[in-house]
Amino acid sequence: MSNRMWGGRFASGPAEIMEEINASIGFDKRLAPQDIRGSLAHVAMLGEAGILPKDDVAAIQAGLKTVESEIERGEFVFDRALEDIHMAVENRLTQIVGPAAGRLHTARSRNDQVATDMRLWVRDTLDALDLQAADLQRALAETALKHAGTVMPGFTHLQSAQPVTFGHHCLAYVEMLGRDRGRFRDARARLNECPLGAAALAGTSFPIDRHATAAALGFDRPTANSLDSVADRDFALESLSSASICAIHLSRLAEELVVWTSAQFNFVKLSDGYTTGSSIMPQKRNPDAAELIRAKSGRIIGALTGLMIVMKGLPLAYSKDMQEDKEGTFDALQSLSLCLAAMAGMVRDLEPVAEVMKRAAGSGYATATDLADWLVRELNMPFREAHHVTGRLVGLASGQGIGLEELSLSAMQEVEPRLTDAIYGVLGVENSVRSRTSYGGTSPVNVQAQAERWLKELGI
Amino acid sequence: MSNRMWGGRFASGPAEIMEEINASIGFDKRLAPQDIRGSLAHVAMLGEAGILPKDDVAAIQAGLKTVESEIERGEFVFDRALEDIHMAVENRLTQIVGPAAGRLHTARSRNDQVATDMRLWVRDTLDALDLQAADLQRALAETALKHAGTVMPGFTHLQSAQPVTFGHHCLAYVEMLGRDRGRFRDARARLNECPLGAAALAGTSFPIDRHATAAALGFDRPTANSLDSVADRDFALESLSSASICAIHLSRLAEELVVWTSAQFNFVKLSDGYTTGSSIMPQKRNPDAAELIRAKSGRIIGALTGLMIVMKGLPLAYSKDMQEDKEGTFDALQSLSLCLAAMAGMVRDLEPVAEVMKRAAGSGYATATDLADWLVRELNMPFREAHHVTGRLVGLASGQGIGLEELSLSAMQEVEPRLTDAIYGVLGVENSVRSRTSYGGTSPVNVQAQAERWLKELGI
Amino acid sequence: MSNRMWGGRFASGPAEIMEEINASIGFDKRLAPQDIRGSLAHVAMLGEAGILPKDDVAAIQAGLKTVESEIERGEFVFDRALEDIHMAVENRLTQIVGPAAGRLHTARSRNDQVATDMRLWVRDTLDALDLQAADLQRALAETALKHAGTVMPGFTHLQSAQPVTFGHHCLAYVEMLGRDRGRFRDARARLNECPLGAAALAGTSFPIDRHATAAALGFDRPTANSLDSVADRDFALESLSSASICAIHLSRLAEELVVWTSAQFNFVKLSDGYTTGSSIMPQKRNPDAAELIRAKSGRIIGALTGLMIVMKGLPLAYSKDMQEDKEGTFDALQSLSLCLAAMAGMVRDLEPVAEVMKRAAGSGYATATDLADWLVRELNMPFREAHHVTGRLVGLASGQGIGLEELSLSAMQEVEPRLTDAIYGVLGVENSVRSRTSYGGTSPVNVQAQAERWLKELGI
Amino acid sequence: MSNRMWGGRFASGPAEIMEEINASIGFDKRLAPQDIRGSLAHVAMLGEAGILPKDDVAAIQAGLKTVESEIERGEFVFDRALEDIHMAVENRLTQIVGPAAGRLHTARSRNDQVATDMRLWVRDTLDALDLQAADLQRALAETALKHAGTVMPGFTHLQSAQPVTFGHHCLAYVEMLGRDRGRFRDARARLNECPLGAAALAGTSFPIDRHATAAALGFDRPTANSLDSVADRDFALESLSSASICAIHLSRLAEELVVWTSAQFNFVKLSDGYTTGSSIMPQKRNPDAAELIRAKSGRIIGALTGLMIVMKGLPLAYSKDMQEDKEGTFDALQSLSLCLAAMAGMVRDLEPVAEVMKRAAGSGYATATDLADWLVRELNMPFREAHHVTGRLVGLASGQGIGLEELSLSAMQEVEPRLTDAIYGVLGVENSVRSRTSYGGTSPVNVQAQAERWLKELGI
Repeated sequence: MSNRMWGGRFASGPAEIMEEINASIGFDKRLAPQDIRGSLAHVAMLGEAGILPKDDVAAIQAGLKTVESEIERGEFVFDRALEDIHMAVENRLTQIVGPAAGRLHTARSRNDQVATDMRLWVRDTLDALDLQAADLQRALAETALKHAGTVMPGFTHLQSAQPVTFGHHCLAYVEMLGRDRGRFRDARARLNECPLGAAALAGTSFPIDRHATAAALGFDRPTANSLDSVADRDFALESLSSASICAIHLSRLAEELVVWTSAQFNFVKLSDGYTTGSSIMPQKRNPDAAELIRAKSGRIIGALTGLMIVMKGLPLAYSKDMQEDKEGTFDALQSLSLCLAAMAGMVRDLEPVAEVMKRAAGSGYATATDLADWLVRELNMPFREAHHVTGRLVGLASGQGIGLEELSLSAMQEVEPRLTDAIYGVLGVENSVRSRTSYGGTSPVNVQAQAERWLKELGI
Repeated sequence: MSNRMWGGRFASGPAEIMEEINASIGFDKRLAPQDIRGSLAHVAMLGEAGILPKDDVAAIQAGLKTVESEIERGEFVFDRALEDIHMAVENRLTQIVGPAAGRLHTARSRNDQVATDMRLWVRDTLDALDLQAADLQRALAETALKHAGTVMPGFTHLQSAQPVTFGHHCLAYVEMLGRDRGRFRDARARLNECPLGAAALAGTSFPIDRHATAAALGFDRPTANSLDSVADRDFALESLSSASICAIHLSRLAEELVVWTSAQFNFVKLSDGYTTGSSIMPQKRNPDAAELIRAKSGRIIGALTGLMIVMKGLPLAYSKDMQEDKEGTFDALQSLSLCLAAMAGMVRDLEPVAEVMKRAAGSGYATATDLADWLVRELNMPFREAHHVTGRLVGLASGQGIGLEELSLSAMQEVEPRLTDAIYGVLGVENSVRSRTSYGGTSPVNVQAQAERWLKELGI
Repeated sequence: MSNRMWGGRFASGPAEIMEEINASIGFDKRLAPQDIRGSLAHVAMLGEAGILPKDDVAAIQAGLKTVESEIERGEFVFDRALEDIHMAVENRLTQIVGPAAGRLHTARSRNDQVATDMRLWVRDTLDALDLQAADLQRALAETALKHAGTVMPGFTHLQSAQPVTFGHHCLAYVEMLGRDRGRFRDARARLNECPLGAAALAGTSFPIDRHATAAALGFDRPTANSLDSVADRDFALESLSSASICAIHLSRLAEELVVWTSAQFNFVKLSDGYTTGSSIMPQKRNPDAAELIRAKSGRIIGALTGLMIVMKGLPLAYSKDMQEDKEGTFDALQSLSLCLAAMAGMVRDLEPVAEVMKRAAGSGYATATDLADWLVRELNMPFREAHHVTGRLVGLASGQGIGLEELSLSAMQEVEPRLTDAIYGVLGVENSVRSRTSYGGTSPVNVQAQAERWLKELGI
Repeated sequence: MSNRMWGGRFASGPAEIMEEINASIGFDKRLAPQDIRGSLAHVAMLGEAGILPKDDVAAIQAGLKTVESEIERGEFVFDRALEDIHMAVENRLTQIVGPAAGRLHTARSRNDQVATDMRLWVRDTLDALDLQAADLQRALAETALKHAGTVMPGFTHLQSAQPVTFGHHCLAYVEMLGRDRGRFRDARARLNECPLGAAALAGTSFPIDRHATAAALGFDRPTANSLDSVADRDFALESLSSASICAIHLSRLAEELVVWTSAQFNFVKLSDGYTTGSSIMPQKRNPDAAELIRAKSGRIIGALTGLMIVMKGLPLAYSKDMQEDKEGTFDALQSLSLCLAAMAGMVRDLEPVAEVMKRAAGSGYATATDLADWLVRELNMPFREAHHVTGRLVGLASGQGIGLEELSLSAMQEVEPRLTDAIYGVLGVENSVRSRTSYGGTSPVNVQAQAERWLKELGI
């Protein structure tokens, strides 16, 4: 780019510009393992179907394995003149096995080949993301189990509303990640059809066995329509969309970590490994990893938007536009992988500051709803009247600058004579969380049960 | 808005601005049926659980049904001062049944209530979209069956590449819509957990039966974490993302219809119902509906992007930001509904111009790959050599300005002596499509079988 | 929609679906004032140019004014059968003035007419947004002037880094809004060309005077290319993009208000007008308006993305897709208007809690960089060595759990003997902010000067 | 990434994950020239202001130039352990000049340094894009001049509506690019303020001269608020937004090229340089470059969306999130650069197929509006009546399967007796375009004048 952008002169001619805009080998070389896997399955099938002689099949197979090991050893030269990874592999294969290499492409086209490679890559990556999300669930569920009874404020509008437990808060993210994994798996199941054999777009007259190649590559079945096979990029869109939603979940936890590690909140401590500091300000522990995770939701959603724009309004079957599916998908899914790894590490390392969280949970009359509920439950007061009485009691405490639990019973009874000693049982934050035993509620017993359910499901 | 925007003066005070930015009743009144359904289930459960006396339950139920019928009859007044639909309904209920209405809100909060309402609305809409997408599949599959053998060019890069059949092309969209419906159903299954009873965010100390309300409302189970229950909008994000991918599919077919109805292509005729014309240019049949469908992908993807941005970086549990989930979701899913209906109508009405499509399919040496494949198959020529020979034959025909099938056998044999009469069998477009019998290929037999499979699956 | 979506049945036929997807009058009726303004200018020009007889011109002008006043008085019936506002106005005009109304459309087409109307609407709205942004600047600059010396922590990574003043912080937003206004104005200047007279797409053979209509409507000049005139929606895209960036600025301030009003930060108090509360939790002041402003960035950016998608890949000149420019643009720009109004109100009403902010500014050794700079400046110590010495002094204080300013001189001199009493002059937060006198720095003198400069520029 | 994603095992520890997510040197090394430019200006100012001794200044300047030439010669080692380009340069500087290098960072911070570097890079790039857009304008205006009278159909809805000239069509894009360039320039002017000297966020107590560094780096002035200086990324957002709109314009022309080069349209021929072919299908000229340009609008808009999401809701001043501004901005602006270069090359090489375009322009009664206008103009018929008469004449011709110009005068006079021979003057496509002489209209005289105006303005 440099001379075009900076030298004030432009590319010297069509050839150079075209190579720059057209060549994909700079990024699709990442598909080399998938490309070779696909070719091995294809040539084996061609042999079985009698389309290729056995010795050609053997030679091609041996040659492909040589290419594969050259790539693994970093000895393979990716030459931009060869334009894409498919040409690069075939070209090297020809050098190794001679003209027989030219038979590999029988009953195949670059269109179905690249669609197969991308599906394989996305499938592998979805599997890895599923594992990583499970690992983060594990880290969160373990933390939840440890802190099933650690009280903190439950916020609405970032204002303390009712006490909850830190474990309960962690489990909320376990739920989100559970849905994320469900989406990864649904996307994987839906993409798991093999386009190989769709050829350029119309299928082929060779007696190929698409079920065989599909099975050999771990697909559930071959795709059912050859035009759709080469024109479809749903598998990338759905994966990017699932990744975007997962990234949004991570951005929420990341935001909380940033807020919670502020000096003002001081709810949790992150480890040195995930923060950066200042040599002269020891208290300053910048939550860089959390901020980067929060931010990376942008590039992941951006990649989704970008590919949706690419696909919008494209006529069937293959158009070169679709080459733009790769870089964004590669980058977004790997960014998510990195975010999941970093978040799991942060969660495993973090330490809640229990006393600060508990104190915060108790401030602001956060148990006022407990009091109101007690009035409804025990005195059969209608909800609205209970709220009215609670408001008066809070006003009384607030006027004296004390907590509800610090009001004397007699003072309270001046507001509502039917109040008894039992009321103090609902005013403390620990009693409050203990009382929320409805299914899904924050009571430590619930939280422990949910954490254990998850850990069991996660295989621990 | 008007006086603020146009009068040069701004709103007279906080109250007015706040009401304008804060009130949601202008759009969430659409949730009235869901809100009442949820309240009916909730109050019945409160009665069963002994939390509310039976007569209060009965009064509230009767009152809610009165409100429901007032809304259905258009007699209900939606007053912006009441802010949202939940308040509006409860307020009217109080007018009807008196203070007992105040007991309805026991063990419930607006946070779990609105989450329940939205899930119900989205679930209903996903079901409707699934039906509409099936209806469009039906229209396409019926057209495919009728045109299983109608030849047209298969395009790559909008250049004719190989002949296919119009039916095959239609079935490509049936496949896409099949995946869309899979996504709608997966989204539906994943969202089908009931948040009711999560209360404000922490659950409740009342002995509620969340499994009962979940079952009464058709949910598979209650949600498992109360914080997540009120903080989650995955169900909207996933539905919008599925809708966006579906809209992209429709935009592709719409683009094809616009291109195909141009005078230059003239591949299909749309009916008057879906076009607009010019009183003085009778040939001008503007494909307005197709253009609008193509365009509406923009607003649907925009709604997805918008809600992703809203949710990015939001701390738990409920924040007012989440009120912004509604308008975009309502508009996007209903726009998709409209697009599906319009596309089904267009497809049912359209007429392919078979002779134009067939002529186009035969031009440009579109059967050259058939010739090359024949050389490989019959003469066991390596793929690359077959391409070389084909190139020479095409050059010969092209030099004379004739089609491949118009070359004499002797002329062809000068290029490759082993060619026989049999070669003419692969040069015609109908033979070409007939030969593509690989699974998923375009041969009319395949297309008919696939169309029948789909129609059977679709219940016809 | 209702019966289609909910009744399980679909629209009864093409006519109904087409009307629903095609008709724009439901939203473009908002363009009525612009449409009439444009028609008045057009017909006056037709008269001047001798294309229309004077009496027809007079009749049409009178008729248009009647229509205008009917609309203003709310007496005009917007009938969906008339499809769009242009037809609705012309239809009513015909009822009023008879066949002469048919002459209004001479040398004009709906394509240039709608482009003109939209430009006028966007231009009016940009002017209003500019005024509103200026009003918010004013509110911020006035607050800055009042709090030029009110110390607060300057954050990086939401960690206190160096003391700044609250006024300085306010002025950062004044700068952002200054750029926003620059963008509104640049967008306005660029769009201020009149498409009227481009007709359908090719211009016209009538001897019209496009410079006259342009001038009459306040445009700088007519557009120079008739195809571009009807195919262009840059003015909407650029306005939406400028609105999006402005909305991002507001989302940042809104986020700060949410964080600052948390009990943990308690940096500012919002007024009742812009918060919602809880009848039983008096401390709970939910910053609803701030949250909604933060969230509305989503729908505004979503509208931008949506229209970009609509315009992507559209061939010239007019396509029906472009009708999708309206709803998103209307909604986004008016949402921004509302956000600006609400933010200005919030800023005017808010009260910083000066003592909390000051205390926070002094904690965490936030003046350590001042100490290091003093060492560099006064002792000519290299930067890195100064950091080393500072680190040791902070360690000393930190070990004793005291602030830097609480260390005795002798204790400090054990670390660095050349330290003098003067060092205490840089350790207090007020001295720190006072010292930052570099241009643009946070010293109260600077802040006051900048606030006054802005207020003068803003005309106060 | 590989072992994390593929090996089933995750990164070995925080250090590795953190380095991977945190290090920016892999992409910000591109800022090396800007970083050194900024440092040279900064150190010169420090010397002038007496903050640094002259010999230190000289040593640092010499050292920086050494580093610069090492980078230019490709000898510089970018070590990921050094995290970012700023550290890498300073580290190498220290190796070269010793401890004096430590004085360079006096009165500066990484926050203002990176903001300065990015502004310089974006400014350079905007300048280059402006030149490239001008070059594309030149190519289009030259083509317009050559084809000022080459008739083609003017389309609405991709249906022929009225004849225009190919030159006129080209000039529509020249107008769009003119606005794009205006946006690039406005963005450049707005960003051209120097953040250097804002230091970490609060300014500095050193007596620096920010006006001097601003001037030395070609900025119009220093930024006015230190918090805003390090927290602002408007310059990237506005540039990405301007780039997105430009990319949309290119996508429209690219779409037209794809459609026009289809066999069905055959309106233009692209050169070999910008197409790819098939060895066996000589007619197949795949417009790959056009398709890629059309598609790249996706990644550019995606980058804009992504960065907007990053910036949404970020509190002041610097957060690590902002490091995510770089890759997307680099990639998007360079992609646009490539698209502009490729499009200019394509336009220069393309050849319109004049006879096909002219024939298409004349079909479909595309001059019917000319006839109607003639009736209005010459016979003073009201517009609606003229349309009625035209409709009858078209019906007559259409019934006989002939063009309007092929109807005999007597046949026409049976419909409207006042018709004269003169009518034939408006029925031919060349007369039609010639008649559209209104300002901005398609008449060849206009087109030639506009093309010449542009070429003069572009300096040819």
